[in-house]
Amino acid sequence: MTRKLKASGSVVSALQFFEKFSEHCLAALETAREEGRPIAGVYCIYAPLEIIRAAGCVPIGLCGKRQAPIQAAEAVLPASLCPLIKSSYGYAKTDTCPFFSAADFIIAETTCDGKKKMYEFLGRIKPMHLMHLPYDQSLGSAFRFWNAEAERLGEYLTAHGGVPITAGRLREEVEIGNAVRALMWEIVRINADGSPLLTGMQLLPVLESKSFMVEAAPYLAALRELRDELLELRKSATGTTTDRRFRILLTGTPVGKGSHKVLQLVEESGAVVVCLDNCSGIKGLDSPVQTEGDLFGNVARRYIEIPCACMSPNPGRLQTVEALCRDFDIHGIIDLTWQGCHGFNVESQVVRERAEGLDVPFLQIETGYSESDAEQIRTRIEAFLEGIQ
Amino acid sequence: MTRKLKASGSVVSALQFFEKFSEHCLAALETAREEGRPIAGVYCIYAPLEIIRAAGCVPIGLCGKRQAPIQAAEAVLPASLCPLIKSSYGYAKTDTCPFFSAADFIIAETTCDGKKKMYEFLGRIKPMHLMHLPYDQSLGSAFRFWNAEAERLGEYLTAHGGVPITAGRLREEVEIGNAVRALMWEIVRINADGSPLLTGMQLLPVLESKSFMVEAAPYLAALRELRDELLELRKSATGTTTDRRFRILLTGTPVGKGSHKVLQLVEESGAVVVCLDNCSGIKGLDSPVQTEGDLFGNVARRYIEIPCACMSPNPGRLQTVEALCRDFDIHGIIDLTWQGCHGFNVESQVVRERAEGLDVPFLQIETGYSESDAEQIRTRIEAFLEGIQ
Repeated sequence: MTRKLKASGSVVSALQFFEKFSEHCLAALETAREEGRPIAGVYCIYAPLEIIRAAGCVPIGLCGKRQAPIQAAEAVLPASLCPLIKSSYGYAKTDTCPFFSAADFIIAETTCDGKKKMYEFLGRIKPMHLMHLPYDQSLGSAFRFWNAEAERLGEYLTAHGGVPITAGRLREEVEIGNAVRALMWEIVRINADGSPLLTGMQLLPVLESKSFMVEAAPYLAALRELRDELLELRKSATGTTTDRRFRILLTGTPVGKGSHKVLQLVEESGAVVVCLDNCSGIKGLDSPVQTEGDLFGNVARRYIEIPCACMSPNPGRLQTVEALCRDFDIHGIIDLTWQGCHGFNVESQVVRERAEGLDVPFLQIETGYSESDAEQIRTRIEAFLEGIQ
Repeated sequence: MTRKLKASGSVVSALQFFEKFSEHCLAALETAREEGRPIAGVYCIYAPLEIIRAAGCVPIGLCGKRQAPIQAAEAVLPASLCPLIKSSYGYAKTDTCPFFSAADFIIAETTCDGKKKMYEFLGRIKPMHLMHLPYDQSLGSAFRFWNAEAERLGEYLTAHGGVPITAGRLREEVEIGNAVRALMWEIVRINADGSPLLTGMQLLPVLESKSFMVEAAPYLAALRELRDELLELRKSATGTTTDRRFRILLTGTPVGKGSHKVLQLVEESGAVVVCLDNCSGIKGLDSPVQTEGDLFGNVARRYIEIPCACMSPNPGRLQTVEALCRDFDIHGIIDLTWQGCHGFNVESQVVRERAEGLDVPFLQIETGYSESDAEQIRTRIEAFLEGIQ
């Protein structure tokens, strides 16, 4: 049994584009293939998309958010790995992810032990390029190493059907990337300005779509349309009855269609997730690539500064959580940890301490993709929400 | 209840020095402190000891191999982390490790996600210096980054009471380090040349001692004495009845006094662990620091080449396993994985495949420090040994 993701049924009509986005995406990918553009499957948000696109390749997010392929993965991988890793490998092994099938090669980064070692098996299925990610954003030598990794990526792309990266093409892609992030951030910020206009479940497909942009123009147009509609709604909503639902910040490990169990349970329990602070959510949206100076280095810098728990220490996450609690008027933080994800699991204690300092109620939920613990989690969430009252 | 480590009761009298080595070590540490030499607690075998010693500091291994402090650690850390990480932090938190207490600061490396994030908490107890370890030994840029990390370590040591490293002092320490490794390797190799002269349980305190050398001269003398006694024994043992016990290679995660459960169970089941291929065992013993050319770079190179599962890919481990199976006439491989150690857990499948290629029986055992599963493991080991027959 899998938790069913309902279409929004919202008054926000521009949401529909995002609910069917993967279909658009597959059609656009097919066109890109016909045009001879290499398809690069990417596994994580540290992959510098602007560089991949400037090399004439199409970066595309890969599947890994459903329970179904996990059993096949466990024939090779330990059961104790996180569901995201097992699901990702299971999709590849069973050839059931159309994005993985379409990819000519895979770009990944050493974000965690489990992924890093899983990629050794993935490399048997499809060509793999692994970027070595340093774990200290403040260290000058670590940045130089990462910058060299970005250059090594460029060389790999050129050697695998991409074109040499020109300053002009890179600038175009930086402008597109910045425009996507800025629009997405405006859309998410709409909930900061009053009663929530979008639930977390409605935000989910919008946020997730950013990993699947093939053609920029129609995607940017759809984002603008949604942004404009929301701004109109916000104007007309002024003065109406105040929404009394608890405003929750969902932080921690990534969430997507198929792994939305906790998000849905929170909202079924009567609260609303007004913001998702994770890498499938707002992480890095407020961080554009700087456009002055060394553009290539700026791209590398922007990516290494992403505040994931794989960084140690990771002060950016605490700063973000604090800013979101203030700006989104958060009543409670729910920190989601996928089972086996040591990074987010250990960091949860650090986030808890910050939440206590902010006097914001905090709940960590450690779970997998299976539905077996759903009712137990529901009970914990209900108790947490009662505790806020 | 903790599995009791028995003194060897062996005919090899030179073993006694190593069975009481930690007492020698604590006394020597006290002398070093009185002389004003900074004490550097080190967490892993990637820490370049020659550099620490050449800077006038005393590197010393830290506790982390017993169950007792784990409960205290779990007040802060997730239970799903490996017992080694939890035990290490628990010792520090409860101030029950005399080596940790004696240390002025801690040197550690980003070998795994759990340790890396645990160090954020350890840094609240004692000054921490974290070396950023790349995960690809073949990449030139990764080596340059690691070399810069070794230089950064030197700067840290100088800033914390150490002396600037001279070429002469570094050469002395390289020669000492190479002599320790060469003698230790000769001692371990004794089992390759015929019936086992030392059981795994007897080898354990000898192998473990290398992390606790404070003064080189008496330590080297004790290693020489043991080596000579074993060579004599080997001569006199020639022509005696052939040992019929199964010869086992124990590989995987580190083992020490207090976490020797699986090692002891194997030998209680009638087999003998003739070699321990892990970082508390022979890993890197056959790999000296090259003495020609850039000595500092040679030290850095020697350490990054250690074939731990934290490297991806990790071909050195497979080559080592293959060579040991041949040279030590191995009848079966037992691969120990501490619960929650994703790196060794995933890599176990790769080692299993190599074992199948070599036609050597293979068993993975995933466990923690607790005794609760000891009888279950005994049953599995007995079944494995029966399968060899």
